[in-house]
Amino acid sequence: MSVTAAKGFTAAGIAAGIKDNGNPDLALVVNTGPRRAAAGVFTSNRVKAAPVLWSEQVLKSGQVSAVVLNSGGANACTGPKGFQDTHATAEKAAEVLGRGAIEVAVCSTGLIGVLLPMDKLLPGVETAAAQLSEHGGEKAAIAIKTTDTVHKTSVVTKDGWTVGGMAKGAGMLAPGLATMLVVLTTDADLENDVLDKALRAATRTTFDRVDSDGCMSTNDTVLLLASGSAEVTPEYEEFAEAVRQVCDDLGQQLIRDAEGASKDIKVEVVGAATEDDAVEVGRSIARNNLLKCAIHGEDPNWGRVLSAIGTTSAAFEPDRLNVAINGVWVCKNGGVGEDRDKVDMRYREVHIVADLAAGSETATIWTNDLTADYVHENSAYSS
Amino acid sequence: MSVTAAKGFTAAGIAAGIKDNGNPDLALVVNTGPRRAAAGVFTSNRVKAAPVLWSEQVLKSGQVSAVVLNSGGANACTGPKGFQDTHATAEKAAEVLGRGAIEVAVCSTGLIGVLLPMDKLLPGVETAAAQLSEHGGEKAAIAIKTTDTVHKTSVVTKDGWTVGGMAKGAGMLAPGLATMLVVLTTDADLENDVLDKALRAATRTTFDRVDSDGCMSTNDTVLLLASGSAEVTPEYEEFAEAVRQVCDDLGQQLIRDAEGASKDIKVEVVGAATEDDAVEVGRSIARNNLLKCAIHGEDPNWGRVLSAIGTTSAAFEPDRLNVAINGVWVCKNGGVGEDRDKVDMRYREVHIVADLAAGSETATIWTNDLTADYVHENSAYSS
Repeated sequence: MSVTAAKGFTAAGIAAGIKDNGNPDLALVVNTGPRRAAAGVFTSNRVKAAPVLWSEQVLKSGQVSAVVLNSGGANACTGPKGFQDTHATAEKAAEVLGRGAIEVAVCSTGLIGVLLPMDKLLPGVETAAAQLSEHGGEKAAIAIKTTDTVHKTSVVTKDGWTVGGMAKGAGMLAPGLATMLVVLTTDADLENDVLDKALRAATRTTFDRVDSDGCMSTNDTVLLLASGSAEVTPEYEEFAEAVRQVCDDLGQQLIRDAEGASKDIKVEVVGAATEDDAVEVGRSIARNNLLKCAIHGEDPNWGRVLSAIGTTSAAFEPDRLNVAINGVWVCKNGGVGEDRDKVDMRYREVHIVADLAAGSETATIWTNDLTADYVHENSAYSS
Repeated sequence: MSVTAAKGFTAAGIAAGIKDNGNPDLALVVNTGPRRAAAGVFTSNRVKAAPVLWSEQVLKSGQVSAVVLNSGGANACTGPKGFQDTHATAEKAAEVLGRGAIEVAVCSTGLIGVLLPMDKLLPGVETAAAQLSEHGGEKAAIAIKTTDTVHKTSVVTKDGWTVGGMAKGAGMLAPGLATMLVVLTTDADLENDVLDKALRAATRTTFDRVDSDGCMSTNDTVLLLASGSAEVTPEYEEFAEAVRQVCDDLGQQLIRDAEGASKDIKVEVVGAATEDDAVEVGRSIARNNLLKCAIHGEDPNWGRVLSAIGTTSAAFEPDRLNVAINGVWVCKNGGVGEDRDKVDMRYREVHIVADLAAGSETATIWTNDLTADYVHENSAYSS
């Protein structure tokens, strides 16, 4: 059901010809109201794609009527012409929808440094608008795929209101947001400042802790649109939890479909003095190429966990560190613990617990193993 | 010639049986004087191997008579027993050489989290001592190899004095020193504070800027020993430059032999506001897995260079960035530059220039491509 699970939204997904292979590559999501409140979170990369620069401006008003999303090109590092193209895309959507261009957010994903084929994209916006439907959510989710092998959607329904969403993302998953485009919708009746608070709280502990390959994108965008169509205003805590659940679910789907991955690795840091320490240590472990290779080889190489912890500024004493892999405490007090041969690593999910023995704060970072398939996917062609 | 190129040094390399496959695994380097001044630089990883903790103490006196080095086990994360084993190794060498244990540095390399077979290592020290020779430098260099495919040595001879050295290192090459063991020797007559100054200056711009896979070791050690045997005291600048040349040469050899690499990548950052900015940007580019995969595929994917620059805190404006790959300015002013099809990437060395257009400082970081062979070497067995 995706973005059309919530009432007050229509969507479409079509093949506009942006991708050479003829696959769907253009999605349109429209908020039919009555409310058009919105919030957004964007990549923290300082090199931002044109659609990010544009959409950041759109979100300043806290009002979004529609989102145009394309795969097949990131429109990043494309200079003034790239920004003009994003602007023209918003203008075209505004024109066919009868709204103002400043209420149209734009998202792009694909190769950096290439201009979009506007002669295909602009007619595509018209085609998509003609196909808008209350059942179009799944088609929209399919049209934003790049190297994704499956489309990703999630829905949480509460008492009279719903939060739905779609996501794409496969490589370049990283900090300050995993690389991706995400559109979340709700029919709850909420102001944009409430949406903003709930969205930032949710992304901080979900997408922002999905770190597949440590690379940060130029195009990451997460939007949350509210139609107010359900005529229900939920309590903040309940709404924020629903948004968190949808983000968490979509984040898990991103990890499970990460490029070339054969293992999903949950890095849980416990016993940290601060949450920041826990996140820093978790990221350091999650980005250690040597460890990620070892996990791929089903080798519970805890020494690589310790060497990753040792590069951080977190509070810990080396001789008090403990590490468990799939429930076996292979490292105790910084040295050899239980027999590593007891660790069963045959399954896709691998659970690493790093205990800093320095406090009671925790954080969980999700990552993948590093595989020959990842190398192949990212070296055999430009993406 | 290695560590015995300088007068006043003997060395040996033997197979003590630490490695299961019977390859050489124990090296001994002895300073026969008359001077025994020394300096050392160690890993900045906070999880330090027992031999690092020991040798740091040894170096406090600025005096080193001998170095025992073993491959086949890192003796890291091995608790109090591991430290006792390092101490016993130094004691054994001191005993057979007739020196004090506190003048014997110890270096280990291999798998983390495993105790060394002391029943083989200690007799090995005796065997090595019996084979010490002024021509033993090459054998010592061979005995410290782990996944190195070749042994690495370098010599610079000046007017009456010499700096020689040996190095090992293949995976886990990273910041705050590339992972490695390095012993440098000189017959110049110099105090330990001069050695220390020259060594720190040299490693800062050589080993510290070799970043193969972003992983920092628990065992990195670089030692510089002076025998004074040449009875010459060179000018500081001349001596420091000779040490830098040997370090630079050994660093290049480490990169060329990095695990699984098919491309050596020189990342040169120019136009930086500060040297720190240049180093930060260089490291960010050098550690970007997606870019390293693209280079492996001979794809001049400059968008991945820009996305890596964008994650740093360096001074720059996105629309003023320029990037050249193998001499072709594929990115100009943050956008599309010369035709990327002009870039010839058939050769092993790849030269990336990132111009921040924000000043006049520069730095060069060396790295490798990311390959399926790297994944295989680091997943197929524990190392």
